[in-house]
Amino acid sequence: MISKVKFFLTLFIALSTSIALRAQQNISIASPNQAINLEVLNTEQGILSYSITYKSRKIIEASTLGFSFSKPALQLTNFTINAFDTTLHDDTWKPVWGEVSHIRNYYKQLNVRLEDKTGSGILLNVVFRIFNDGVGFRYEFPQQASLRHFIVSEEHTQFRLAGDHKTFWIPGDYETNEYGYHTTKLSEVDALAAAQKEKDIALTAPIGANAVQTPLMMKTAEGLYINLHEAALRNYPVMNLMLDKKALTLTTHLVPDAVGNKAYLQTPAQTPWRTVIVSDKAAGILASKMILNLNEPSLIGDAEWVKPQKYVGMWWEMHVGKANWPLADGKHGANTRNVKSYIDFAAKYGFKGVLVEGWNTGWEDWFGNWKEEVFDFVTPYPDYDIKELSAYAKAKGVRIIMHHETSGAVTNYERRMDTAYRFMQDHGMNMVKTGYVGRIIPRGEHHDGQWMVNHYERVAQKTAQYKIMLVAHESVRPTGLHRTYPNWLANEAARGSEFHNAPTLGMSPEHTTILPFTRGIGGPMDFTPGFFHFQLNQFDSTRTQKIRSTLAKQLALYVTMYSPVQMAADLPENYNKHLDAFQFIVDVPVDWADTQILEAEPGDYLTIARKEKIRDADKGKEAWFVGAITDENPRTASIALTFLKKGKKYEATLYRDANHASWEKAPEAYTIEKRTVTNKTRLNILLASGGGCAISLIEK
Amino acid sequence: MISKVKFFLTLFIALSTSIALRAQQNISIASPNQAINLEVLNTEQGILSYSITYKSRKIIEASTLGFSFSKPALQLTNFTINAFDTTLHDDTWKPVWGEVSHIRNYYKQLNVRLEDKTGSGILLNVVFRIFNDGVGFRYEFPQQASLRHFIVSEEHTQFRLAGDHKTFWIPGDYETNEYGYHTTKLSEVDALAAAQKEKDIALTAPIGANAVQTPLMMKTAEGLYINLHEAALRNYPVMNLMLDKKALTLTTHLVPDAVGNKAYLQTPAQTPWRTVIVSDKAAGILASKMILNLNEPSLIGDAEWVKPQKYVGMWWEMHVGKANWPLADGKHGANTRNVKSYIDFAAKYGFKGVLVEGWNTGWEDWFGNWKEEVFDFVTPYPDYDIKELSAYAKAKGVRIIMHHETSGAVTNYERRMDTAYRFMQDHGMNMVKTGYVGRIIPRGEHHDGQWMVNHYERVAQKTAQYKIMLVAHESVRPTGLHRTYPNWLANEAARGSEFHNAPTLGMSPEHTTILPFTRGIGGPMDFTPGFFHFQLNQFDSTRTQKIRSTLAKQLALYVTMYSPVQMAADLPENYNKHLDAFQFIVDVPVDWADTQILEAEPGDYLTIARKEKIRDADKGKEAWFVGAITDENPRTASIALTFLKKGKKYEATLYRDANHASWEKAPEAYTIEKRTVTNKTRLNILLASGGGCAISLIEK
Repeated sequence: MISKVKFFLTLFIALSTSIALRAQQNISIASPNQAINLEVLNTEQGILSYSITYKSRKIIEASTLGFSFSKPALQLTNFTINAFDTTLHDDTWKPVWGEVSHIRNYYKQLNVRLEDKTGSGILLNVVFRIFNDGVGFRYEFPQQASLRHFIVSEEHTQFRLAGDHKTFWIPGDYETNEYGYHTTKLSEVDALAAAQKEKDIALTAPIGANAVQTPLMMKTAEGLYINLHEAALRNYPVMNLMLDKKALTLTTHLVPDAVGNKAYLQTPAQTPWRTVIVSDKAAGILASKMILNLNEPSLIGDAEWVKPQKYVGMWWEMHVGKANWPLADGKHGANTRNVKSYIDFAAKYGFKGVLVEGWNTGWEDWFGNWKEEVFDFVTPYPDYDIKELSAYAKAKGVRIIMHHETSGAVTNYERRMDTAYRFMQDHGMNMVKTGYVGRIIPRGEHHDGQWMVNHYERVAQKTAQYKIMLVAHESVRPTGLHRTYPNWLANEAARGSEFHNAPTLGMSPEHTTILPFTRGIGGPMDFTPGFFHFQLNQFDSTRTQKIRSTLAKQLALYVTMYSPVQMAADLPENYNKHLDAFQFIVDVPVDWADTQILEAEPGDYLTIARKEKIRDADKGKEAWFVGAITDENPRTASIALTFLKKGKKYEATLYRDANHASWEKAPEAYTIEKRTVTNKTRLNILLASGGGCAISLIEK
Repeated sequence: MISKVKFFLTLFIALSTSIALRAQQNISIASPNQAINLEVLNTEQGILSYSITYKSRKIIEASTLGFSFSKPALQLTNFTINAFDTTLHDDTWKPVWGEVSHIRNYYKQLNVRLEDKTGSGILLNVVFRIFNDGVGFRYEFPQQASLRHFIVSEEHTQFRLAGDHKTFWIPGDYETNEYGYHTTKLSEVDALAAAQKEKDIALTAPIGANAVQTPLMMKTAEGLYINLHEAALRNYPVMNLMLDKKALTLTTHLVPDAVGNKAYLQTPAQTPWRTVIVSDKAAGILASKMILNLNEPSLIGDAEWVKPQKYVGMWWEMHVGKANWPLADGKHGANTRNVKSYIDFAAKYGFKGVLVEGWNTGWEDWFGNWKEEVFDFVTPYPDYDIKELSAYAKAKGVRIIMHHETSGAVTNYERRMDTAYRFMQDHGMNMVKTGYVGRIIPRGEHHDGQWMVNHYERVAQKTAQYKIMLVAHESVRPTGLHRTYPNWLANEAARGSEFHNAPTLGMSPEHTTILPFTRGIGGPMDFTPGFFHFQLNQFDSTRTQKIRSTLAKQLALYVTMYSPVQMAADLPENYNKHLDAFQFIVDVPVDWADTQILEAEPGDYLTIARKEKIRDADKGKEAWFVGAITDENPRTASIALTFLKKGKKYEATLYRDANHASWEKAPEAYTIEKRTVTNKTRLNILLASGGGCAISLIEK
């Protein structure tokens, strides 16, 4: 329901004069709950800026807006405000899947109608949406005689910060988002030095010393939490942010295409939403649904076939050297016998999917050569009997998850997508994991440029046409598009579990306490948790890497790292040694009716409780699952179970670190306890260094 | 039949010494008929060169060979000859269609096995094939440990000429081959000035003042004719030639990709053949089958479905302003009623195809905006009833020819090709005219780069899979690949008839006397001749353009411009005014048992006789068709009919310029005469300024 009622009462309008067009213009508008105030200022010279106040504290100082175009060649940085209007929006919608069953979309909108002051006649709007938890704004270029096709050479959107905030950042980069996070003051960002330390990312293209990526998480000295990102990234390149350390100002830097342009647009056109989420509690950032709300409703029609699920698969054994992707070296993992054993394991424990990597020809020569014709996506290796396996999986009630590694040769993939998806249908598969490891073809394009952003969306569209669910790796980081394409379940698009195996920097114990505040703000991550074996020399005695986590923390990640697809990433043989702990992975759902962020501090700790969407529906009973994690510091999670129904008893199963556990010395030391609890219970649970705790709470 | 017998008798080998590896090495080999001699020289320093002698006259002086690679980064310009061997090849093959029914492939081959002298260990071969009418050579990179994936940043193949020859050239360019020809001495080439005069080509990217394209036609002061081109251009960019005017040396300049590289190769790899055709008669250049012989045999299997044919269509009426491609402006040509009238006309006169341009949505916004999603290739305009027209055409024994204008958005086309070809099959179509007007997407790629060369071949492959014949416009110029893909009937890839309508330079009367020596050397051109109305103000009185040809010359072009597809390009209403002359277009075949070049001088005149492949086969009777054309100068073609069977009588129908005809004053003045002739007859026929003559000779 959209209300077009104008907010004359809540809107403070200060047009210095309506006649003297040269005078300064101010527009001010508050969020529905008045906590956030947005001001738009246009100077005599036509310099347009906005600022944001949260509970009377300035969050974003006056920050200017504008563009450079290369066609028509002009600077769009001086504006006349022709008009503006405001609306209130308040409705509630139901996601196909998610962290909560209902989402309220409640904001005031300010639409500022602008004209280029330099005389081109170009019209544009800046549309602001002021939510109770932040502000989103975008540029809109209406259909008009003065502007039809145009090429953006840069967007000049500023975020001028009010202080030298503590910032959780990764280097700005055209190709990758798989960096480890750094925590420094804004003024201490050195993205190039950070990028140069990274040795384990397949392909990097860092932008410069002062470039950082979004979602960018910050904390002010006063304890406010600010998150900058974008929503609904479609037909536009990714926004990186360039830092001016003196001015504490971040400015958009879009990812270029092969010839240095940024975006090719045609009116009517619009940019993605630029988002500022703000809260005085870290939990408020995680609870925000603003990014989702700024995305369009589903475009895929009936989504009854989209099924959140857990899966196992042929993947980690390649990473630890037990097997390999290519057939040629004699350790081919994806052979019929081996995959059958995964299907057996999946069926035994109720996993719906079995991922199989290395099933198709091409792996002998796939990486690092900018080669266009690597995979055809339909030719199995001779030792992989796809017909037999399809039948076997079907008989066991399991589906094989397709793996389409493109090696970055996207033109090749696009030519073959239809055929590949038909091949999946023919073999009973309904989920694909895509991969983009390597330099992009079309050569000169980048993973995060407009052309690739459009590609990822094309894949989401086309898989939807074939009723296929999608999980993309090495892709663009999400911006809430899973609302629009609910078959696009998750992306990797950050440092995930494969980096446990990275020889150089790997994954720090604090990484998973930062991810939900950064990468997770845009959408679900296929993080692939669940490791039960921590020293990675199981099959290769020369390896010294170890997973910097306890076993109990691995369980907790199924709750703290939200995703509608969750892998049990370790080897079945490792799970078989700890079947009591594995029970939590078997039990934990992937779709939720409610979520409560109980404790949160980025870089330190996180405790989240989630209510299962479907459990004993006929009996009206409910189940909650809690994950608590910490960084390298032990801590006591203090969990008040006030979210449980009053007067009901629940069986709590606690999977916690043993008292002597630590990621470094005793990662596999865990304790399982069962207790009866109520909504008055408070659990105080010791989390080890690099540790965590997982709890299931089943109504009796 | 390949003979591996070594030519110890005919091969002169002068290894200065087989032990002192530093000494200079010479290898010499002659063509089967001894007319051509090739010498390969490797200096002490490892500078490798070749030279070519024709009838004891030096054609190519010692010219060096080599490469620059960007990966591995090295110069491949100093070589050690490890070994060499020679073979003789002599066989005869039958083209699916062509100018002749049988082609002899007769050459000596010299394979020089080289190693990089600078120590990289890289092995390569230069393979020379010495025919009686020229030399072809290519580089081969065998599979080897020292070289797997590599990137060519430039090829350094020289053609050092022995004199300042008269040269027929167009500017070297990354995007287009639609220039008008210039005739100057080599030393007088000014390609940039020439390119800047061109205003009517949709997109140009001239390389520089000294860059020219192939096929490059030259004539020496002694009256030798030399043609430089390439054969079997696959997985490699187009070769332009950079001229060093002082040294009279041409050196390869390959078309770059979006990031400035030239070719991405993986061993085993090979370049296209670099070709030097030489003759002491201009006719010898036209008669050469060397380019075809250097191409691989057909890859498309049974080609019974490939049918050379004539067609009419919805095309010229857009060019002259009677109709238009878009629906929006109210003159939409491709409407059901109008197309039916073309089908009626085609059926009445035995044309097998009706081309329809502007049938599909997108033309309102198709050109000049580097826009990716323009056409979907399956959505007709609402006034084009494709079902009704498909049925109507089928009932009349005619097929609609599909038009796929890509607007240069090749990624978009590649994504949609399968669907588009299936759509064609569903509607009874088996020929597609593709178009590439505009800047290429992937952005930064060029029409003539490696990626596009591969694209054109992919289209040939995929259309073959769907049993679809292909005619490509604005594509790469041919290099004999129609042997390998006989469904790829023709390309435009040069200045064709649409330039009659160009406001600036248009098409000179000599253009068609040069084309067969240049563009035509690589393969058939969809030139679209057959104009009967010469003042182009028929529907738009403001137009001053006129076609610089007589009507009789337009008929002659059906013989002189060889192609297995020939359009009758003018409007039916213009043909209806001259049905007696139109009869030649109705009669002239498009597939030939034999071809004889009777008179030829590039830039001046051309007389060709061709024998129909199938005519009265049961009665053993034959038919010949003769075309004679001249440039702006009137001349008398003197045609001895010695090619006719001895002792047989033929009915000759002469379609000639009327005595007062001229392209400028009286283009439509023609005379038709019937005579009985024998193989002893000599016809002396006056060709007007810009004129010509067409003759059918039917055995009685």
